[in-house]
Amino acid sequence: MTLKLGVIGAGAIGQEHIRRCNNVLQGAKVVAVSDINVDGARAALQRLNIQAEVYADGHQVIQSPEVDAILVTSWDPTHEEFTLAAIAAGKPVFCEKPLAMSAEGCRRVVDAEIKHGKRLVQVGFMRPYDAGYRALKKVITDGGIGEPLMLHCAHRNPAVPESYTTDMAITSTLIHELDVLRWLTNDDYKSVQVVFPRVTSKSHARLKDPQIVLFETQKGMRIDVEIFVNCAYGYDIQCEVVGETGIAKLPEPASVQLRSEAKLSTTILTDWKDRFIEAYDIELQAFINDVKAGELTGPSAWDGFAASVAADACLKAQQSGAIEPVEMPPRPTFYDKK
Amino acid sequence: MTLKLGVIGAGAIGQEHIRRCNNVLQGAKVVAVSDINVDGARAALQRLNIQAEVYADGHQVIQSPEVDAILVTSWDPTHEEFTLAAIAAGKPVFCEKPLAMSAEGCRRVVDAEIKHGKRLVQVGFMRPYDAGYRALKKVITDGGIGEPLMLHCAHRNPAVPESYTTDMAITSTLIHELDVLRWLTNDDYKSVQVVFPRVTSKSHARLKDPQIVLFETQKGMRIDVEIFVNCAYGYDIQCEVVGETGIAKLPEPASVQLRSEAKLSTTILTDWKDRFIEAYDIELQAFINDVKAGELTGPSAWDGFAASVAADACLKAQQSGAIEPVEMPPRPTFYDKK
Amino acid sequence: MTLKLGVIGAGAIGQEHIRRCNNVLQGAKVVAVSDINVDGARAALQRLNIQAEVYADGHQVIQSPEVDAILVTSWDPTHEEFTLAAIAAGKPVFCEKPLAMSAEGCRRVVDAEIKHGKRLVQVGFMRPYDAGYRALKKVITDGGIGEPLMLHCAHRNPAVPESYTTDMAITSTLIHELDVLRWLTNDDYKSVQVVFPRVTSKSHARLKDPQIVLFETQKGMRIDVEIFVNCAYGYDIQCEVVGETGIAKLPEPASVQLRSEAKLSTTILTDWKDRFIEAYDIELQAFINDVKAGELTGPSAWDGFAASVAADACLKAQQSGAIEPVEMPPRPTFYDKK
Amino acid sequence: MTLKLGVIGAGAIGQEHIRRCNNVLQGAKVVAVSDINVDGARAALQRLNIQAEVYADGHQVIQSPEVDAILVTSWDPTHEEFTLAAIAAGKPVFCEKPLAMSAEGCRRVVDAEIKHGKRLVQVGFMRPYDAGYRALKKVITDGGIGEPLMLHCAHRNPAVPESYTTDMAITSTLIHELDVLRWLTNDDYKSVQVVFPRVTSKSHARLKDPQIVLFETQKGMRIDVEIFVNCAYGYDIQCEVVGETGIAKLPEPASVQLRSEAKLSTTILTDWKDRFIEAYDIELQAFINDVKAGELTGPSAWDGFAASVAADACLKAQQSGAIEPVEMPPRPTFYDKK
Repeated sequence: MTLKLGVIGAGAIGQEHIRRCNNVLQGAKVVAVSDINVDGARAALQRLNIQAEVYADGHQVIQSPEVDAILVTSWDPTHEEFTLAAIAAGKPVFCEKPLAMSAEGCRRVVDAEIKHGKRLVQVGFMRPYDAGYRALKKVITDGGIGEPLMLHCAHRNPAVPESYTTDMAITSTLIHELDVLRWLTNDDYKSVQVVFPRVTSKSHARLKDPQIVLFETQKGMRIDVEIFVNCAYGYDIQCEVVGETGIAKLPEPASVQLRSEAKLSTTILTDWKDRFIEAYDIELQAFINDVKAGELTGPSAWDGFAASVAADACLKAQQSGAIEPVEMPPRPTFYDKK
Repeated sequence: MTLKLGVIGAGAIGQEHIRRCNNVLQGAKVVAVSDINVDGARAALQRLNIQAEVYADGHQVIQSPEVDAILVTSWDPTHEEFTLAAIAAGKPVFCEKPLAMSAEGCRRVVDAEIKHGKRLVQVGFMRPYDAGYRALKKVITDGGIGEPLMLHCAHRNPAVPESYTTDMAITSTLIHELDVLRWLTNDDYKSVQVVFPRVTSKSHARLKDPQIVLFETQKGMRIDVEIFVNCAYGYDIQCEVVGETGIAKLPEPASVQLRSEAKLSTTILTDWKDRFIEAYDIELQAFINDVKAGELTGPSAWDGFAASVAADACLKAQQSGAIEPVEMPPRPTFYDKK
Repeated sequence: MTLKLGVIGAGAIGQEHIRRCNNVLQGAKVVAVSDINVDGARAALQRLNIQAEVYADGHQVIQSPEVDAILVTSWDPTHEEFTLAAIAAGKPVFCEKPLAMSAEGCRRVVDAEIKHGKRLVQVGFMRPYDAGYRALKKVITDGGIGEPLMLHCAHRNPAVPESYTTDMAITSTLIHELDVLRWLTNDDYKSVQVVFPRVTSKSHARLKDPQIVLFETQKGMRIDVEIFVNCAYGYDIQCEVVGETGIAKLPEPASVQLRSEAKLSTTILTDWKDRFIEAYDIELQAFINDVKAGELTGPSAWDGFAASVAADACLKAQQSGAIEPVEMPPRPTFYDKK
Repeated sequence: MTLKLGVIGAGAIGQEHIRRCNNVLQGAKVVAVSDINVDGARAALQRLNIQAEVYADGHQVIQSPEVDAILVTSWDPTHEEFTLAAIAAGKPVFCEKPLAMSAEGCRRVVDAEIKHGKRLVQVGFMRPYDAGYRALKKVITDGGIGEPLMLHCAHRNPAVPESYTTDMAITSTLIHELDVLRWLTNDDYKSVQVVFPRVTSKSHARLKDPQIVLFETQKGMRIDVEIFVNCAYGYDIQCEVVGETGIAKLPEPASVQLRSEAKLSTTILTDWKDRFIEAYDIELQAFINDVKAGELTGPSAWDGFAASVAADACLKAQQSGAIEPVEMPPRPTFYDKK
């Protein structure tokens, strides 16, 4: 049975997902697409050589009887609205991050989903599908380093445009760590503190770069994440887990080893799109498979809510310079992993 | 348009390809399967939840009007027969290695294909589809190390059973290097010499292990390949290209980096099936795409023939201890890369 | 001219320095040794096959007309007294850390030295003489990574005895980072905060292990140092400097690379004595050479004072959980590097 | 007791040894120096601030009653003469490689030494004193990789002048591997074959570069050594020992790890003088200590002879293209390691 997908939002990310679902993944096809810019959507479909119904309004996609499941890849502020509408229509929905523009908005999605009685939402956090993170998690759960005590992480990007502001280090960049570190440690954040080193000369007036975000978790772990978005040298994700008996570190991407000009070197990526490129395929195939199997298992609306609550605390900590609590309610049993 | 595939041979490899084509890859489905053991074939299809016509004889698969293209994964001695039959039927055929049991057999396939007037054969050499080998080749063709002068390679396996004999180091193990090193260097072998170190105590009476195979190529490169099939420590493929200005080495597979018990370590694979696992998907998807596009571009019958000629010279060199010529006729323009 | 040394304290460290000066280094010999345990000192000299005058009291060593320069390797609480006495006698003195038991004590040494009018004191901080740290510093000063913004460091030890308490993480362990990071960055600490992850099950009641010490420097750098003294896996020193254009990391000690049992590994040291073993030789040879040249250039009494002031702030921060200021007076020109 | 050394030859290497013995090492001093260019020798001593008797003729150094032991660092063709003279005078002699200009010359030294009845000669092969080679040997002797079966080695240099000819790859460059691989494996060469890849464009008419030298040892090991003296990228020594259960590789020199310009890199040396710089100190200190202890233990005249016999076979193999025997007589018990 081919799962019939409707895609809301045909911008860059939406087009990538459309291409993916039709041309790469198994068991699904895109039958409806919506975008404010209907002509642009049609042109994109033509380029991709894909036949699908085109609408101006995402709600039309959700309501279409031809559509079994929804992908929300529209303008961030519309994510909550379309996700709630999909839940109301009883249809599974893969929602790109952010789930909503606020923790309250995420909470509304959680409440709607719980009321519906069955998980319908997968949030587009792809790192749990990255082979490197999965291998790292396996070492930990297999007991390879004993109980985790500390995590030392970094999210580095070569350069960002002038439109990138201090808060976006949290909402655009750190948001991925906020989700994957909860998944990696099976823990929740308790408090967060943000410290600012001297600013790099490569930053601009509205961006304090780099930043260091320090977490304490509910189990007492300490996590530090360096966010450095004008690091110059490359796109580099680091994650080191220090346990009671050893340390496990996220794999470096495989690379040719070169001896040249008095250096022994491997390559560091420069384009963020290359770093987790397989994970996007895997997360969507997992969504498709889960929908067909009748049970979603990927990052949930609760995970989206948790990341949002943590992000809010990070933003507050950026401003206050103090240690800010991360007020997480206990996870409803509805969201327990089976 | 879904390409309709017929699979000849439903053993382990055949079942994997069937699974792959139906459940993982795009644009094809298996409609017919043959195996001497018809019941076994049916059972396999049931396990895979795949509907397809089952025959006792591969020729029935080839002749079926439902079948657009063929996969030959049967007992090695039958490969040539089925591939020739597929060519005679004018149908594209993906033939697992070996293309034939001898260089002469491969030559018959080449001649039949040339006579047909258009490439129909892709041989199942997967390493040219491995991301690591492709990255290595790119460094070379981009001029990153200057003209290649020497290659130092190794093909190591933890252990082999008593049925594995000295000649199989060439025909089963080295055969992959014989193809991929021609592809990597865009060169052909000129001569080969095999030397035998002292035998490992972990070998057995009918197997001299390890072996070192030394090639000279037509462009004058020197290639050494260590074949060590009872190396104990893991499944390990090494390929280092020494050029005029630098050295490029095949990537180690990505791995978690562990600090534990006074060692800083990464993992070495132990199961050969894991090493090129993505390449099998990629080579078959390439075959499917190429058939639909109307032009095959993967390892050709000529490549199968070249590997077979080289293997014969290696076997002779194992016996003689001398430097044996590799008598390669010039490549027909029919097989020039477009 | 052979520099005639007097060694105060013939315990483990004293004996090592005696051996070093007589048998390894150039241009000096030990002519006098003191220890409360005179017999033990005599026995040690006999074992080392070294002739020297033995005294019960370090002051006798200092006053001896045969002695040109002093090494203080006695019980920590006596360091200040003997160093002040050496200054009073106008003799150069190499004082093992700690220079004194308090910042005030270090300040007394500084004041005495300034009053004397010429540097006489070298403190036994050996890491600035370590080839790895020197190479790291050179990359920074050569501009290889742009302006340094952040340092991520770790000081890990396999296990400590029950006598090792929470404060010793600062006074025994971190004290080396407190000195070398000032040297590496050419900066001073401005504030410090200590956070405690969950305690490792391998610790004991009087030791919170691990700890993370967070510094802000006067130039605005942020430094984090993980101190983990029951890490189990080895003795491991890490130091990563994140600059505006790149990152430079302290070399791993050279090691055989092993492929064995499905792992590709290098060795991590387990004994702290092995990690900086050459640096002890180099720091003492530098002291000897500097004394003969007439000008001391190694870690100064001011560096000892600065480390002590920083350590006091760290101890306070351990207790308060707050961000504690590091109140460093400006460095007297007396201590400017020529 | 200070060992009084006489140095024959005050060129670059001689001056380095003079500096080393007087200023770095323990227990010896240079009391006499000879050089054809007496004024040059005097000037060198003045620069080094060393007092010693200066002679025109090395024999005067050997005969001087002030001289306990000799260092021969003169023009290669004079090594045998001076070493024989030192043996005749019953004085220990450290002779820089080559021991003599031919295997026969080395044999004469061996015979003279055996006739003398006690080892007097240490040959200046420094690699057995390199910490990396020692660590590698320890892994092997501790059984870490099982019985060694194959060695893959490389000796690479960035560039050589026009005066460097094809034979010098053996006599100047490979000579070090010829000694250290015997020491590493505790084995002797049985045969050698030299193969020539296509020549690098960076070579010149009288130099075939690179070359690959292939050995079989008496215990049946196979050793390949790539010699590439215009490799462009750096000075790089590689040595990988493949054993029955694993592989051990010579350490890369310790290096800062740099992330910069999309590369993760460590440094490769470019100057051959830096690669084994500590080993020169260690080999001479060992000579001094051994002379004082009354028993030489370093590379012997027999090792010099063995390297010379092997080198002759390599030169013959360069010419013939055939597998040439290495005719080593059995080692006299005189040279057995105690």
